[in-house]
Amino acid sequence: MNIQEIQLASRPSGTPTTDNFSFVDRKLPNLQDGEVLVKNLWMSVDPYMRGRMIDQKSYVAPFEIGKALEGGAIGEVIESRNTDFPVGTNVSSMFGWRSHFISNGGGLTQIPTTLLPLQSFLGIMGMPGMTAWTGLFRIAELKPTDTVFISAASGAVGSVACQIAKMHGCTVVGSVGSDEKEALLKELGVDAVINYKTAGNLSDALAEAAPQGIDVYFENVGGEHLEAALNNMNDYGRIAVCGLISQYNATEPQPGPSNLAMVIIKKLKIQGFIVFDHWDHYKEFAQQMGQWIAEGKIKWEETVYDGLDKAPEAFIGLFEGKNKGKMLVKL
Amino acid sequence: MNIQEIQLASRPSGTPTTDNFSFVDRKLPNLQDGEVLVKNLWMSVDPYMRGRMIDQKSYVAPFEIGKALEGGAIGEVIESRNTDFPVGTNVSSMFGWRSHFISNGGGLTQIPTTLLPLQSFLGIMGMPGMTAWTGLFRIAELKPTDTVFISAASGAVGSVACQIAKMHGCTVVGSVGSDEKEALLKELGVDAVINYKTAGNLSDALAEAAPQGIDVYFENVGGEHLEAALNNMNDYGRIAVCGLISQYNATEPQPGPSNLAMVIIKKLKIQGFIVFDHWDHYKEFAQQMGQWIAEGKIKWEETVYDGLDKAPEAFIGLFEGKNKGKMLVKL
Repeated sequence: MNIQEIQLASRPSGTPTTDNFSFVDRKLPNLQDGEVLVKNLWMSVDPYMRGRMIDQKSYVAPFEIGKALEGGAIGEVIESRNTDFPVGTNVSSMFGWRSHFISNGGGLTQIPTTLLPLQSFLGIMGMPGMTAWTGLFRIAELKPTDTVFISAASGAVGSVACQIAKMHGCTVVGSVGSDEKEALLKELGVDAVINYKTAGNLSDALAEAAPQGIDVYFENVGGEHLEAALNNMNDYGRIAVCGLISQYNATEPQPGPSNLAMVIIKKLKIQGFIVFDHWDHYKEFAQQMGQWIAEGKIKWEETVYDGLDKAPEAFIGLFEGKNKGKMLVKL
Repeated sequence: MNIQEIQLASRPSGTPTTDNFSFVDRKLPNLQDGEVLVKNLWMSVDPYMRGRMIDQKSYVAPFEIGKALEGGAIGEVIESRNTDFPVGTNVSSMFGWRSHFISNGGGLTQIPTTLLPLQSFLGIMGMPGMTAWTGLFRIAELKPTDTVFISAASGAVGSVACQIAKMHGCTVVGSVGSDEKEALLKELGVDAVINYKTAGNLSDALAEAAPQGIDVYFENVGGEHLEAALNNMNDYGRIAVCGLISQYNATEPQPGPSNLAMVIIKKLKIQGFIVFDHWDHYKEFAQQMGQWIAEGKIKWEETVYDGLDKAPEAFIGLFEGKNKGKMLVKL
């Protein structure tokens, strides 16, 4: 049968453009014994994918030019020669960016039957939700008395981190890039919101939003945000470094914060993490998150682009702040 | 009686000069009940003191202009109206930079009677030795299989850190600023030494010195050293930030490393620390260090300036790399 996939046509320099992607038709062979055919229903685009478009060593291998991209996806088994995954099974995989794929079962995870929409397993119940939970509890050792600063606070990870920290009893300050996102965060109960595009000096704005200082910084952005956070951290503060989206499209090395001496003066801990390293705690997360959702304690937003061919646009939109909450493509 | 002290005459801009200090004669009152008169025998100069010469909030209050400076010192009680500290007692205190001082016993610690030279309690058995031990074990969680990079490796802290890491079974790479210091480190058994002044690209030099990568970086310097370390860290590496001497005299903010993304890519932990926070572990340190010294397993160097009036010169010399091991002033 014929399927469609999106391949990396060329490595982006700076912000990706649609020219870096190509939409390709290709033929799949017939199923062998043990194999299943999966039709993708939803796919995820995430900022970390930008790193894989560069040809350099990182925690995952770079994407190859002329091959389909990869990323989180939810699909349905539509043909099966594998009894573990009968027709009709919903599965998550990293085989996004394509309409269909064949698998021998490797890399497929069956999605439990719940009342939640399927695509929530790419968002609140999936990687972004787990990232927020991991960064706060397993890296930043969140305490109820903490004041927490969260950058990119209306994003898929940030908006969940804000709500988890509020439920834990913390005071939460978020930074966003538009008035609309500011309003969204206030609806979520965040104590103070900074629009970094209009706030002027970010360090001063943060000092005003959190006069008591910051105990935990959930870092998604880098650059000025990190500098502002360092200036406003309290002694023994913890910085969980989840992402540095301000730097992903930089064509030249960006200088780090000029106030790193704060790390000594305030005895800070800065720790980077990758959620996949913590996946053995997924069950613990899912149980807790499932309960919060069931109790109506947590909300989430989705920004949905329609059709596989819109995936490059959705991905590029991440760097232009076009998403509220989780950015998704519906196939 | 008349005593001499060195006061802060003005706050330095950039590298301190002797003009920033004044040598002052002044009169001490007679002893009251409960007080002792201490004659200082040795005093310490340390890079961290530079921070206290700036008028800004830090972990200790800034020095005041027109008042005596402060710093570690070893003295002898020469007059006593306090039975806890009879005449002849050797004490350590933070009342350096003066020939004598009066105390009611507060801030004095009696030095145990050992075969060690008195001034070792300002060096290997004192704050610098304890700093090396704390950074390696309590911050960087040193393991015998680690490859450890230590900057300012021939200094009071660095030279002890090198030897502790070697005794723990680690592979050790040190960086220094002269051939003479390089020779010294090789005598101490360090596996590879980089002279950063002649090495060219420091990141490449480190890659060559430690092709297996760095697991622990003991940071005393900052700037290019931190950037080189980040490039060469292994996954889950730990950076104990003890000092940033390359930046202490900067008159403008210095940009941080341009490769902070390594913190995520390699899942690194960067943690600043102040040895005074860990002083409740001093006994554990002193016992261990005393044993190493008794077994002849550890060596230390001293660079001694003679006379209180030479203290400013000794202090300024720290930033010019004039010390091998501990920089001391003998009064």
